[in-house]
Amino acid sequence: MDKIKRNERLAAMTSILTSSPNHIFTLSYFCELFSTAKSTVSEDVAILQETMKQFKLGKLETVTGAAGGVRYRPIGLGSSSRAFIEEICERLRQKERQLPGGYLYFSDILSEPQLVQGMGTLIASQYYDCGADFVLTMETKGIPVALMTANALRVPLIIARRATKVYEGSAVNISYVSGSGGIETMALSRRAVKEGQRALIVDDFMRGGGTARGMIELMKEFNVSVAGICFVLALENPKKRLVEGEKALMLLSDMRDGEPFTVRPADWIE
Amino acid sequence: MDKIKRNERLAAMTSILTSSPNHIFTLSYFCELFSTAKSTVSEDVAILQETMKQFKLGKLETVTGAAGGVRYRPIGLGSSSRAFIEEICERLRQKERQLPGGYLYFSDILSEPQLVQGMGTLIASQYYDCGADFVLTMETKGIPVALMTANALRVPLIIARRATKVYEGSAVNISYVSGSGGIETMALSRRAVKEGQRALIVDDFMRGGGTARGMIELMKEFNVSVAGICFVLALENPKKRLVEGEKALMLLSDMRDGEPFTVRPADWIE
Repeated sequence: MDKIKRNERLAAMTSILTSSPNHIFTLSYFCELFSTAKSTVSEDVAILQETMKQFKLGKLETVTGAAGGVRYRPIGLGSSSRAFIEEICERLRQKERQLPGGYLYFSDILSEPQLVQGMGTLIASQYYDCGADFVLTMETKGIPVALMTANALRVPLIIARRATKVYEGSAVNISYVSGSGGIETMALSRRAVKEGQRALIVDDFMRGGGTARGMIELMKEFNVSVAGICFVLALENPKKRLVEGEKALMLLSDMRDGEPFTVRPADWIE
Repeated sequence: MDKIKRNERLAAMTSILTSSPNHIFTLSYFCELFSTAKSTVSEDVAILQETMKQFKLGKLETVTGAAGGVRYRPIGLGSSSRAFIEEICERLRQKERQLPGGYLYFSDILSEPQLVQGMGTLIASQYYDCGADFVLTMETKGIPVALMTANALRVPLIIARRATKVYEGSAVNISYVSGSGGIETMALSRRAVKEGQRALIVDDFMRGGGTARGMIELMKEFNVSVAGICFVLALENPKKRLVEGEKALMLLSDMRDGEPFTVRPADWIE
């Protein structure tokens, strides 16, 4: 192989680091890949850190210690997170999204890859240091955003089901009171998670927190603690609130049949 | 802003291009971003193309014409797609994955972000030129792989549901015969897709193709044609086969209670 130029090394390193967010690559890994000295790779990393900062492409961090190296986190991307979420809010304000019974149609937003990637990385940015071993969501609509959050954190996604499925093996089932007051069930395969782990709960919508409360109860059955709870959209002033410490990307005013509603980015988003 | 060096431009371009797969960026976009001449950006692109090829980081294509520019497609990543799929097969061969009734547990594989990203981009690589306007999947287990396929193709993901939901608005419901012979229903919001579009169907498992057949029927109701069908795993010799022209990443021998089974990468995977 010809000697690899700095230009080429930087392009390759960028691609490798950004496609495996939150994974620590040792400097030796790049030394071997490029047949070059550690001092050279260190210089490459310094240039890359500066470039990512300048163009708001994310954060490249050096991690010291035995398991040290360099890791990419998609934090502070693009112009502003607030502008990105405000754009989504603008779409959610379309009058035709209001459905009978006080519901808002946003399934399209929840499965558009570029949007869910943006929302997932924004959620992840708040939970890098919470020590979550996995992201937990309840089927169905929250799955895409939860997957992108898990991808940015580089942890598995665990999907709770509405009922036990034969292809999930033996499962733990619980009953919980949903936001609308009905009794619902939730199931998770016994082999999905391990005792002592920590879960980050990500879901699409919080009306009163009933489903999230159910997920917390489900985790108790597995002796798993909950490190955080984040929703894409939450009612700003729910009549009752069954969880605490939760975050949301967007806040929705109480919604009633045919009446005007508001939706806005949460205050913590910069 | 100081003059931006080629090093920095290449790192930034790599990050921008790879984070928006299949999107065409004009050269002018980069000229403005870096305040530099078109000839310089052209040289940058040439270097990047060579580097991506050398390190198997994907394909950078220049697109000519009025809507021309440069586009990144995650094709031919890493050492070999076959080795990647073989690794997953190896995990699926674990005896404890066999469940009563001839089922295989692979929900964990289907929601591990790195794996579904690899599988999704591999599926996408087969359908870049099929003209799909969206990826269609049926809830729940196939959603992560389908989302990553949609992300690589830069098209929306559409999720068919088992039943109409109040928050999806008016919906089209159909009945279909499932792989196990029962009658099931499938629903999709009327506003989810438009007449005349083309769908790429991606799902987790094909036993006889019943669910896929249902998705094709559902698309007919919307006057949408099906541009392709791909499964993560399919029975190698199904008793009946209700679809044709489908692909799969992995093939599973017929599975019976407690009897040995085989799983292997499909022949088309290089």
